[in-house]
Amino acid sequence: MRNAQHLLNPDGVPPLETVSERRVRFEELDPMGIVWHGRYASWLEDGREALGARYGISYLTFYEHGCMAPVKKFSLDYIRPLLHDHTYTIHTSLLWSAAARMDFRYVITDAGGEVMTRGETTQLFMTLKGELLLEHPSFYRHFLERWKRGELL
Amino acid sequence: MRNAQHLLNPDGVPPLETVSERRVRFEELDPMGIVWHGRYASWLEDGREALGARYGISYLTFYEHGCMAPVKKFSLDYIRPLLHDHTYTIHTSLLWSAAARMDFRYVITDAGGEVMTRGETTQLFMTLKGELLLEHPSFYRHFLERWKRGELL
Amino acid sequence: MRNAQHLLNPDGVPPLETVSERRVRFEELDPMGIVWHGRYASWLEDGREALGARYGISYLTFYEHGCMAPVKKFSLDYIRPLLHDHTYTIHTSLLWSAAARMDFRYVITDAGGEVMTRGETTQLFMTLKGELLLEHPSFYRHFLERWKRGELL
Amino acid sequence: MRNAQHLLNPDGVPPLETVSERRVRFEELDPMGIVWHGRYASWLEDGREALGARYGISYLTFYEHGCMAPVKKFSLDYIRPLLHDHTYTIHTSLLWSAAARMDFRYVITDAGGEVMTRGETTQLFMTLKGELLLEHPSFYRHFLERWKRGELL
Repeated sequence: MRNAQHLLNPDGVPPLETVSERRVRFEELDPMGIVWHGRYASWLEDGREALGARYGISYLTFYEHGCMAPVKKFSLDYIRPLLHDHTYTIHTSLLWSAAARMDFRYVITDAGGEVMTRGETTQLFMTLKGELLLEHPSFYRHFLERWKRGELL
Repeated sequence: MRNAQHLLNPDGVPPLETVSERRVRFEELDPMGIVWHGRYASWLEDGREALGARYGISYLTFYEHGCMAPVKKFSLDYIRPLLHDHTYTIHTSLLWSAAARMDFRYVITDAGGEVMTRGETTQLFMTLKGELLLEHPSFYRHFLERWKRGELL
Repeated sequence: MRNAQHLLNPDGVPPLETVSERRVRFEELDPMGIVWHGRYASWLEDGREALGARYGISYLTFYEHGCMAPVKKFSLDYIRPLLHDHTYTIHTSLLWSAAARMDFRYVITDAGGEVMTRGETTQLFMTLKGELLLEHPSFYRHFLERWKRGELL
Repeated sequence: MRNAQHLLNPDGVPPLETVSERRVRFEELDPMGIVWHGRYASWLEDGREALGARYGISYLTFYEHGCMAPVKKFSLDYIRPLLHDHTYTIHTSLLWSAAARMDFRYVITDAGGEVMTRGETTQLFMTLKGELLLEHPSFYRHFLERWKRGELL
């Protein structure tokens, strides 16, 4: 994993990270009394939006710049189930990428630090008309430059 | 009820009606093994869209005419719970109204005809910018005229 | 309204109230960019659970006492739309009732105190096997007694 | 891929396959007017349940045998967006596995046969108390034997 990451990131720029919390709602539970596996997309989006709010790259920012970042790939590994009324922590990381994409990693942990879930998403950039952007939107390129210079940490 | 309906509808135009079916999904169930009360909005919308498709007044038709019909009021009476894998029938009625609004009534029944749920919604008309329309959009007025002349039954 | 409430509540016991906050998520939005009308059930449940947590009558408490309180009636009046990334306040009230039921009222307001939504729910009491309870569960009767004596305010 | 599949399946047993259809609902759309990426779990579950209904291995069958098959891994590749009111086909395959797990593959296509989405899930077997089963439940072993003998195709 470490090697693969290194190959993907020859620039050696460390990821950006955010931590957020969320409590399980009754409506998220399935008949087994655990969060239905299909509801976790909302949890990852919470993490992504928390990171976006912190670093100025939220959905609204994209929209205001005439573009969007739809999810291209999505994957989850369910390790322990999330339970009603429990509060969990979402650890979200945005990996450095010089290519026109956003790679997020997520780890959900319980109050004791146990890992409940791991997730990954990849987003691409598009115009609001749905045309794929092969280069970063200009506001995002500016954001990358500040990240690379270490101004965001 | 009959009297009230009569007062609301001095024109005596009968309602438009549609019947559709839907099967309960696992993801709709709560920990009690019944459909969570908050998911029924999707069932009513199914009925409304079935009626809209039949009579040419679907969401897309509104959108193509530069307007929308947001839900203003919504109510449900839960009589018997909906169960996993069972298929239920949604009976949808659009009541006649000369005013700029849409009043729907819904009854969900099981395979034996037992009533499981009753619902009501009221929608208003708006421009796509969110301005309230005090009169019917022209395509909808045309639809009302055909309805009143009995051409839709 | 005042009169009707008075008739329903000859004991003159004031309602129990709680205030909670919630931010609109991207996933709650419809193509019009406002919260889809069917997602508000989750907002009311948030309010109900906040009140339940405060006064010791949450879903889990019912469950631990071998009963549940399914929603029997549900209604909403949509006054202004909820918008992305905005935080709204849910004001939840449990009305006094000597009968075996729970009547909640909800008002959602924005940061400036404007009313966005009004809602009402009624719940009944059931055993975990789904048999209707015509009397309060004993833990709930105890709760009512403390409420009536003014020990909960 | 072919090689990897071969390594995983030295028995050379062909997958079981089912095709089902589903129409996009208004409530599934996000502000971009396309199905929100987090709603696809419901589409995959539809495919899985269609296959389960056809071959007698639905959620209810597991439950009646005192076990369940929670999703352990879940991944999606979004190729083209799903659009309102369009009907898509879900092609679901259950891959042969001698180990105590279920590996599904999914392809969603439009009316012209274009691939919109690809997905994969892995499920494990558990008792209703949440204990991992390292061997197949007996009804499932029987199902595997019939599958291997070619009696299910």
